[in-house]
Amino acid sequence: MKPERRLQVAILGATGAVGQRFVALLENHPWFEIASVAASERSAGRTYREACRWLLPYEAPDRVTSMVIADMSPHSGIDLAFSALSASVAGDVELDWARAGVPVFSNARNHRMDSDVPLVIPEINPDHLSLIACQRESRQLPPSGFLVTNANCSVTFLAMALAPLHRAFGVKLASVVTMQAVSGAGYPGLSALDISGNVIPFIAGEEEKLEAETQKILGTLENGTLEHADITVSAQVNRVPVTDGHTESVAVKLGAPATLGDVRDVLQAFSGEPQAAGLPSAPPHPIVVMDEPDRPQPKLDVERENGMATFVGGLRPCSVLDFKMTVLGHNTLRGAAGGSVLNAELAVARGLVGGGRGDNR
Amino acid sequence: MKPERRLQVAILGATGAVGQRFVALLENHPWFEIASVAASERSAGRTYREACRWLLPYEAPDRVTSMVIADMSPHSGIDLAFSALSASVAGDVELDWARAGVPVFSNARNHRMDSDVPLVIPEINPDHLSLIACQRESRQLPPSGFLVTNANCSVTFLAMALAPLHRAFGVKLASVVTMQAVSGAGYPGLSALDISGNVIPFIAGEEEKLEAETQKILGTLENGTLEHADITVSAQVNRVPVTDGHTESVAVKLGAPATLGDVRDVLQAFSGEPQAAGLPSAPPHPIVVMDEPDRPQPKLDVERENGMATFVGGLRPCSVLDFKMTVLGHNTLRGAAGGSVLNAELAVARGLVGGGRGDNR
Amino acid sequence: MKPERRLQVAILGATGAVGQRFVALLENHPWFEIASVAASERSAGRTYREACRWLLPYEAPDRVTSMVIADMSPHSGIDLAFSALSASVAGDVELDWARAGVPVFSNARNHRMDSDVPLVIPEINPDHLSLIACQRESRQLPPSGFLVTNANCSVTFLAMALAPLHRAFGVKLASVVTMQAVSGAGYPGLSALDISGNVIPFIAGEEEKLEAETQKILGTLENGTLEHADITVSAQVNRVPVTDGHTESVAVKLGAPATLGDVRDVLQAFSGEPQAAGLPSAPPHPIVVMDEPDRPQPKLDVERENGMATFVGGLRPCSVLDFKMTVLGHNTLRGAAGGSVLNAELAVARGLVGGGRGDNR
Amino acid sequence: MKPERRLQVAILGATGAVGQRFVALLENHPWFEIASVAASERSAGRTYREACRWLLPYEAPDRVTSMVIADMSPHSGIDLAFSALSASVAGDVELDWARAGVPVFSNARNHRMDSDVPLVIPEINPDHLSLIACQRESRQLPPSGFLVTNANCSVTFLAMALAPLHRAFGVKLASVVTMQAVSGAGYPGLSALDISGNVIPFIAGEEEKLEAETQKILGTLENGTLEHADITVSAQVNRVPVTDGHTESVAVKLGAPATLGDVRDVLQAFSGEPQAAGLPSAPPHPIVVMDEPDRPQPKLDVERENGMATFVGGLRPCSVLDFKMTVLGHNTLRGAAGGSVLNAELAVARGLVGGGRGDNR
Repeated sequence: MKPERRLQVAILGATGAVGQRFVALLENHPWFEIASVAASERSAGRTYREACRWLLPYEAPDRVTSMVIADMSPHSGIDLAFSALSASVAGDVELDWARAGVPVFSNARNHRMDSDVPLVIPEINPDHLSLIACQRESRQLPPSGFLVTNANCSVTFLAMALAPLHRAFGVKLASVVTMQAVSGAGYPGLSALDISGNVIPFIAGEEEKLEAETQKILGTLENGTLEHADITVSAQVNRVPVTDGHTESVAVKLGAPATLGDVRDVLQAFSGEPQAAGLPSAPPHPIVVMDEPDRPQPKLDVERENGMATFVGGLRPCSVLDFKMTVLGHNTLRGAAGGSVLNAELAVARGLVGGGRGDNR
Repeated sequence: MKPERRLQVAILGATGAVGQRFVALLENHPWFEIASVAASERSAGRTYREACRWLLPYEAPDRVTSMVIADMSPHSGIDLAFSALSASVAGDVELDWARAGVPVFSNARNHRMDSDVPLVIPEINPDHLSLIACQRESRQLPPSGFLVTNANCSVTFLAMALAPLHRAFGVKLASVVTMQAVSGAGYPGLSALDISGNVIPFIAGEEEKLEAETQKILGTLENGTLEHADITVSAQVNRVPVTDGHTESVAVKLGAPATLGDVRDVLQAFSGEPQAAGLPSAPPHPIVVMDEPDRPQPKLDVERENGMATFVGGLRPCSVLDFKMTVLGHNTLRGAAGGSVLNAELAVARGLVGGGRGDNR
Repeated sequence: MKPERRLQVAILGATGAVGQRFVALLENHPWFEIASVAASERSAGRTYREACRWLLPYEAPDRVTSMVIADMSPHSGIDLAFSALSASVAGDVELDWARAGVPVFSNARNHRMDSDVPLVIPEINPDHLSLIACQRESRQLPPSGFLVTNANCSVTFLAMALAPLHRAFGVKLASVVTMQAVSGAGYPGLSALDISGNVIPFIAGEEEKLEAETQKILGTLENGTLEHADITVSAQVNRVPVTDGHTESVAVKLGAPATLGDVRDVLQAFSGEPQAAGLPSAPPHPIVVMDEPDRPQPKLDVERENGMATFVGGLRPCSVLDFKMTVLGHNTLRGAAGGSVLNAELAVARGLVGGGRGDNR
Repeated sequence: MKPERRLQVAILGATGAVGQRFVALLENHPWFEIASVAASERSAGRTYREACRWLLPYEAPDRVTSMVIADMSPHSGIDLAFSALSASVAGDVELDWARAGVPVFSNARNHRMDSDVPLVIPEINPDHLSLIACQRESRQLPPSGFLVTNANCSVTFLAMALAPLHRAFGVKLASVVTMQAVSGAGYPGLSALDISGNVIPFIAGEEEKLEAETQKILGTLENGTLEHADITVSAQVNRVPVTDGHTESVAVKLGAPATLGDVRDVLQAFSGEPQAAGLPSAPPHPIVVMDEPDRPQPKLDVERENGMATFVGGLRPCSVLDFKMTVLGHNTLRGAAGGSVLNAELAVARGLVGGGRGDNR
């Protein structure tokens, strides 16, 4: 299950905010080795150090900062690619790499809702990876190439909180109001003049993603086709002056009777294939239930568990739906780069990566 | 309707964050004149300048800063009193003043839910002032004394947004997620270490107030008794790093069919007795409807209309309830001191204040 | 001295952060009327409402928002022009307008240090306007056209604090450490990811401006030539997460003996031609001395006096130089748009504007 | 040099902001083991979990959270004590422990300037520990007990930057303007209403500490007596809305000629006994010189090197003194708890701790 050698990875869009998170997560990764950092033509040819305004509060790894940035066309010697590309270019570039025989694990939104592209959160729907077979067929990809996407950052934490409830009781309705961190808009992203001391009640396209992606992730495969879950989601999104960590006020209506204790128990007990398989980036508990009434909080909790867990607190009855809770997750770790890395680990563990390595050299 | 002379007012709890707002609003008020600033024993006997850490971004009025702070017991020469007292002392002090024959307009929570105390937002339920008659009887108050409360800050803006919809279509369900400003916690209130760059998903007692006070304000008088409105409200409250301005993500289910255009129209057209009577602090439009998708925002909008309007934007359909919207108001102006001042203006205009003035001298 | 009719003004670069301040200050100005808003080709032809992301916490004036934005070439019917242009275009555009016979009052840095261009703070060096004569000659401008600049925002407050000391005692050395607001970088300016919760100890070119412009402003005219003041200034600049208001920790070494009381007195007593002439935008006291040890503060003080005063506090002896103090001013009001408006009022009062008005029609 | 067994430590004032940093640093320390957490009577008798509002963004160690908090009187079984006590109680309590035979490493200001108490930064003045001998004599302490203090947080970084320059060239004058983080005021410390979006140009007593402690730390021992360094320091202090990390704009006048390259070299090359002895908490380079013009920054740099290094950037000539620079350090790590831990490690390595351990049992 563990790869025999460290797999050579390319990071597409390596200089942006999410790209930097990929660099930080993959340096010293036990299975993966950064072999290439690729970016737009503006950056290509310069060293990573020159082209990148490094945003993280520790030094960029020396090995990477001295790399020369490649352009974004597929190149040889790569076992798998991570995409932190912006939506303006991800659509084509990711498919180019897949067609070149490289498994691509993408954080971009472009192909998430394509019916033949798995939209995967490993604890929830690892079986959706079987869509890769029809993807290869429909898109005529070589045996080793495919595309897997992770969810939008806000969706990731909502889906994680809903999944155990949906399994145990069925979720009929979910309303979610998000308070999203500034880092979710990339770099430079928001002007300090706009967001400092402010709340902005709008993020383009975000409410639609929350409503649609959640249904796909919680959907079920029937004869190779994905049936989206019959959950009605209503979202209201807000940007708040927080650096990292999306907080969500969530309410749900369940399809079967449940007590508050039941809800707490299924959330607490939730675990999945990453935990069972011991994937390197899997948090011990994908959901951390907090009983203090004023938790979780981004400033205190979002860096815990390496930013890979979803924190759920404030469980209480809801007079309009059934239950209310506060959900928190790290938007650029589990909600972006970390989610893709875990997807890649899942695919490696399932033997989907590496078999065709020779082919693309 | 307009008083023949400027009425002499006392401000109880004048040194705190809300007390300062009272001072700022009442200095230069056309009907009222600050005759006394009262505070706890710790401050009494010192000048206002010495006792008060002034927080507003302009100078405190000279006339007030040189006043010596009185203790909180009722004193003569006062036509009406405003209470910015903390809940720990407001309960008794306010009643002491009413028993001394002084009309009290309170921002404290203590008596809001008492069945004989009007909880008033002048545009919504000015008729609730008729509860004063039974209040006098049940509490054996002298003819000129009574107690009127304004709503909790978050409730004020929710009730304002719901009122026209409830009148036009009936509101069955309302869910509200608040993002509340730091000034709502008073001074010193929150530690900067706790709230800067953070979201705190808890404010003690606030969700209960949102659920209960809204029902009382939107209730109807039946034979002198207040029937609370049959609206189910579910609230989730959050503190965010904003100085002034509570933002609320609201969803409603209506009791009768309505289009989005209908909803917009009744909000836009809403007006009440303060506007009809031309009360000095009444905003021209109690609800300002905003059509830009990313508005209202505290940083851009909360100071407009002298902080006395409720801003509603982001009107759109809701897949779980019927309609969604973003609601914003100024928590220490309309949501606190300004709300009480408007209540007092309403009472004066209705002839409830001043008749018995001679009695309490 | 007061103009016989409201003078017609153009605002160049009207859609940016400083441009918006010009719009806000000039709407309802007793002497000036906004006749034209001009901006880059990207905006020209659209209405101001469409082209401008309005950043101020009150509504843009209706009369201006419905104006169609002009391009930046000189057009007729304009009595004077204000320039909020960025340095990338200001150099040529401003001279084009001056050559077309229009007096230009500029906030841009391009021509500030030109030997024939007055760099004016009206309380300090109104006599520098006499450089206009040689400017007209050297640049062959028509009789009515000329260019006057205001100082860099940080320089404005430093120069204001130094001027009375320099007059009274001579200033030999001045060291200044600035903590500058985000709005000083324009819009969008700084990324929230960069500045929230941070201090950035660098602003390109700012230290040089503090050292050079101060010497020019405090310089003296000798036979029509400007002798820069012999004051050595050393500056260290920092950006801090404040929206408006530059705070400066200043220390000075004087050329003559002075007590702390002497220093306080000359600062307090400082007044100039704007005050004597009653210019509409002149603050009653150009310097407001504060005796509380923890003042001035941007959050509490910067909006006072319509943002046109310089606040000086924390006066105390310095063991390295002679005296230390904290200086504060509003960087986009007195430090930018407000400074230019006051310059224009000065020029009008001195009869320098309007005489040649007919010529440029 | 390394102790034969893990030494048992008590943390005095363990529940406050600095106390928590001690807990975090000492849990898993190779030489020390937390044996006791002590606090005021209000907390004593409760578990650490109950009594402490944990502020750090990771979980408090389980072993400590289950400890019952002791009162602050000396108790047996303790090899050394760390004091995070507030100045209101530290004075007596620390001496009580020293008199009971326990070496005390204090972060409190009370005894820092006592002539027989070493004020130590291990890289700069480890030899000052020899003052312990006269301390024992003058205060009649048992052989094993003594008191060592670390410097004020702001002083720590200033002294660190000055020390190599003073050794190499002599420092005659130093001016420093600080921009200090909120955590420096403890918890709850500053109200968010006061500091968010603001600069407060005052911290009580801080300028005096910068001027006096720096002279003591850089002083020299002459026949057992400490001669303070003849450096004139002038400080202006400001509080800024940053969570952790004090930034200082520093200028110096040297006693001997030096080029900018010379200055850079001696800062870069600086190293001391902690590095030579390989103390567990010693940063590899006590001073990290940064050549990017906009560094160091608290948000990007303060957590690097485990918060134990001093970052110096922006080296450039100064027209008033000789050289300017920006200095940054972590105020609650190197500037508080971490500084004390390093002092204790130094004392252990020098054989000053542990010899008398049996005596105080």
